[in-house]
Amino acid sequence: MSAEQPAPVLIQLHADDNVAIVGNEGGLAAGTEALPGLLLRERVPAAHKLALRDIAAGEPVRRYGVVIGHALQAIAAGSWVHERRLSLPDARPLTGLPMATGAGVVGAPLEGLFWDGYLNADGSAGTRNLLAITTTVQCVAGVLDAAVRRIRAELLPRYPNVDGVVGLEHSYGCGVAIDAPDAPIPIRTLRHISQNPNFGGEVMVLSLGCEKLQPERLLPPGSLPLAAAMTQLRLQDEQHVGFAAMLDALVAAAVPHLERLNARRRQRLPAAKLVVGVQCGGSDAFSGVTANPAVGHCSDLLRRAGATVLFSETTEVRDAVEQLTARAATPAVAQRIVAEMAWYDAYLARGGADRSANTTPGNKAGGLSNIVEKAMGSIVKSGSAPITGVLSPGERIGEPGLYYAATPASDFICGTLQLAAGMNLHVFTTGRGTPYGLAECPVVKVATNSALARRWHDLMDLDAGAIARGEATVAQVGEQLLQLLLDTASGRRSWAERHGLHNALTLFNPAPVT
Amino acid sequence: MSAEQPAPVLIQLHADDNVAIVGNEGGLAAGTEALPGLLLRERVPAAHKLALRDIAAGEPVRRYGVVIGHALQAIAAGSWVHERRLSLPDARPLTGLPMATGAGVVGAPLEGLFWDGYLNADGSAGTRNLLAITTTVQCVAGVLDAAVRRIRAELLPRYPNVDGVVGLEHSYGCGVAIDAPDAPIPIRTLRHISQNPNFGGEVMVLSLGCEKLQPERLLPPGSLPLAAAMTQLRLQDEQHVGFAAMLDALVAAAVPHLERLNARRRQRLPAAKLVVGVQCGGSDAFSGVTANPAVGHCSDLLRRAGATVLFSETTEVRDAVEQLTARAATPAVAQRIVAEMAWYDAYLARGGADRSANTTPGNKAGGLSNIVEKAMGSIVKSGSAPITGVLSPGERIGEPGLYYAATPASDFICGTLQLAAGMNLHVFTTGRGTPYGLAECPVVKVATNSALARRWHDLMDLDAGAIARGEATVAQVGEQLLQLLLDTASGRRSWAERHGLHNALTLFNPAPVT
Repeated sequence: MSAEQPAPVLIQLHADDNVAIVGNEGGLAAGTEALPGLLLRERVPAAHKLALRDIAAGEPVRRYGVVIGHALQAIAAGSWVHERRLSLPDARPLTGLPMATGAGVVGAPLEGLFWDGYLNADGSAGTRNLLAITTTVQCVAGVLDAAVRRIRAELLPRYPNVDGVVGLEHSYGCGVAIDAPDAPIPIRTLRHISQNPNFGGEVMVLSLGCEKLQPERLLPPGSLPLAAAMTQLRLQDEQHVGFAAMLDALVAAAVPHLERLNARRRQRLPAAKLVVGVQCGGSDAFSGVTANPAVGHCSDLLRRAGATVLFSETTEVRDAVEQLTARAATPAVAQRIVAEMAWYDAYLARGGADRSANTTPGNKAGGLSNIVEKAMGSIVKSGSAPITGVLSPGERIGEPGLYYAATPASDFICGTLQLAAGMNLHVFTTGRGTPYGLAECPVVKVATNSALARRWHDLMDLDAGAIARGEATVAQVGEQLLQLLLDTASGRRSWAERHGLHNALTLFNPAPVT
Repeated sequence: MSAEQPAPVLIQLHADDNVAIVGNEGGLAAGTEALPGLLLRERVPAAHKLALRDIAAGEPVRRYGVVIGHALQAIAAGSWVHERRLSLPDARPLTGLPMATGAGVVGAPLEGLFWDGYLNADGSAGTRNLLAITTTVQCVAGVLDAAVRRIRAELLPRYPNVDGVVGLEHSYGCGVAIDAPDAPIPIRTLRHISQNPNFGGEVMVLSLGCEKLQPERLLPPGSLPLAAAMTQLRLQDEQHVGFAAMLDALVAAAVPHLERLNARRRQRLPAAKLVVGVQCGGSDAFSGVTANPAVGHCSDLLRRAGATVLFSETTEVRDAVEQLTARAATPAVAQRIVAEMAWYDAYLARGGADRSANTTPGNKAGGLSNIVEKAMGSIVKSGSAPITGVLSPGERIGEPGLYYAATPASDFICGTLQLAAGMNLHVFTTGRGTPYGLAECPVVKVATNSALARRWHDLMDLDAGAIARGEATVAQVGEQLLQLLLDTASGRRSWAERHGLHNALTLFNPAPVT
């Protein structure tokens, strides 16, 4: 090893592991003595795995103490262990699982954690004070865009306590098989998003008139709390003569909602009013070492403070199903976890795919060989608390707890479904980097490595990279994240908010279009 | 009948029909003598059907000379024949169909039809001169939005011959089963949209870096014509340090594309350079009587002039499949029609739905009892020329002709797929009314009835309602539409363009998300 090269940093997560990942940002060169007596046989990039000892053909490769694959051919100690040298293990069968056998306990209550939020009449709380305009169908999107521009320009300056106006546009509502067995998923998703806590119980619905998803079907009697204030506007109604009249009607309809929203003030609230959705995207091998464990630690702190945490991404946790069922608070919760996994297995099979469809070229370039390895790094975001509830896609939370919100791993679909579940604050970890944001809810982005945090200095809200260098512990970064979450919930703007960056609402519609 | 009431207008389309539709805008009251000796037994709304004679329980109900259902109970002459009084006939089996038995001929060549458009190096032509920015994945949408705003504000004023800049955003690209059997549909759709004739052969691709749909997969070597000018930009590349740098790079990358687009001028082109996509949405019973037949007449004129016409909406033509297979130019074309219908039958069945999922509440309120009746009115948009080609979803046209572009009937998915096919001009008929528009291509909207055309005076581009009143023939309105199409192709702005109204690109992805 030449004097100019930094000292090798190897990260081995479990004593049984026969691989470790390279922590050095520049990777390690061939010939480097990675450990005493262990010379690298080839260059190993940052975040990629190297073999700690000789691995025979067919022998298991272990990381996180878990078999992430079998060697397709003999791998000599000091070799780069990449995805083309591993077979993908079979999916864990959904029978014979440990059911609520190791739920553990939420740690000691964490007192004194407060934030400043908008308390809603139904007991939920907003981290932002937004006017949302719900739509039944994509047909109205053009008119809505024009109306939102006018509301922003003409009305918002008069309502300084309102943080913004959001048009809830989507591709559902017509041209869809609305009575198909899976159609309730997108419908309840839209129903519940319209009642996200960040919208203050104000529900303004814009419909076309002839669409399949009629307003009564989107929001049937009893689906809104009594305290909700709803107005409806239908473009095909005869009183709307011409385009300008439609805009006038929308602008006028917004006024009473804005008046009420503007009269609200932030107040001191316990952490138990937070509903934090956690997600990862653009992952690399550091995700499961730095940012995700820190999120997991923060999740445990949030649970000890009585907050709700949602974790998701079915295809990314499928291979850790026995960890989830074991951690279920009750056998009934464990059963629901199994049911969601089985539903998703069948959904993928129906479309000729399986869980191996999850990993991306960027995951692999980032050192994640396959979905098993990715899953082990993904699931740690959920921390170690008992799993108290399961949500099918589009369902909404009940009591505070740690929920497995079953969603696809697609960043946008997952975020949309977490919004429907009632999320008022979003944590997103990334190793490769994504400018992800939501218009409906603040997103705090955590970089898994410092190279990304430096390069995207005004897009990443927190850098978890110090963990890989041994300069900070997982617990320290987790506590740092908790404080950032409380500040963001209280009004501090995330980078995505400061730039106005947000992605589209993207519905999960497993039913056919027509 | 009192002196104040207008004379009853009944529209019977075929001598064998035992129902007729009410042409009067206000409908007809109970007791009205609709025909000599035929008293209405109840009120019949505008565009709805009345029984011309007694129909026994189980007897066929005929409109367009076609059985649209069977009477569920006896229907007395003068009764309102609505959807709850009819059974839906079984779907026409896809065997034993007439294959290319009645293709007929394109009429005499129509000479002297010209328009002013932008000729592209590959022989296609644009009706607009737009800079499109292609994206591989939804992740980049927030950054793209910001960049498009800057390009519009800072660059477009310097390039007055460029009509606009369009970000081709979509929900595909990652979190999808990209190797599933049906994944080629969304991928080729995006590939072909990026080459729509309205974008002048300039291809600017924005990608993230780690997504599944890598730029090489979206646009593999050989997928672009040699004349196309492509630039690529990847947000995760190391030279983009921070958000502002990303925007700067995008703005800079746009300049050479804008320079070349701005140097172009409209020139006189034959009608054969038009690729007209026809579609209907928000249909009522007038759709099949006024606007759609006028579009069909116009389609025949376009074919006589050598232009390409695309018609679509599989679930809306499924019940007229024997008309389509008979009109196929060759047995091979007829076979492809059958194959597309069979694929869609299976797709719907896989999701627990069938063709009856098509009709909407608005269709029924507008007098369309079921999908059979809707299909008969929908298919007339295709005119009477031989069907020369069939496109699977996302495929692109070859030689000029009349194409059955197999797409779902969803307005946005159909429009998106017609853009991929190469559409440079869009005709959209509506009876209930929709503010539909596309950012990529002008949309000419035709109202099926004058009440809508009056009420939405600045959203509907043409009123076909005079046909129902006997004040204009189908041929006259069809010729009027042809002239409006030539004018719009040449630069006249549609109402949707004048208001800046457009809907989202909406991909057809029958494959799973992950």
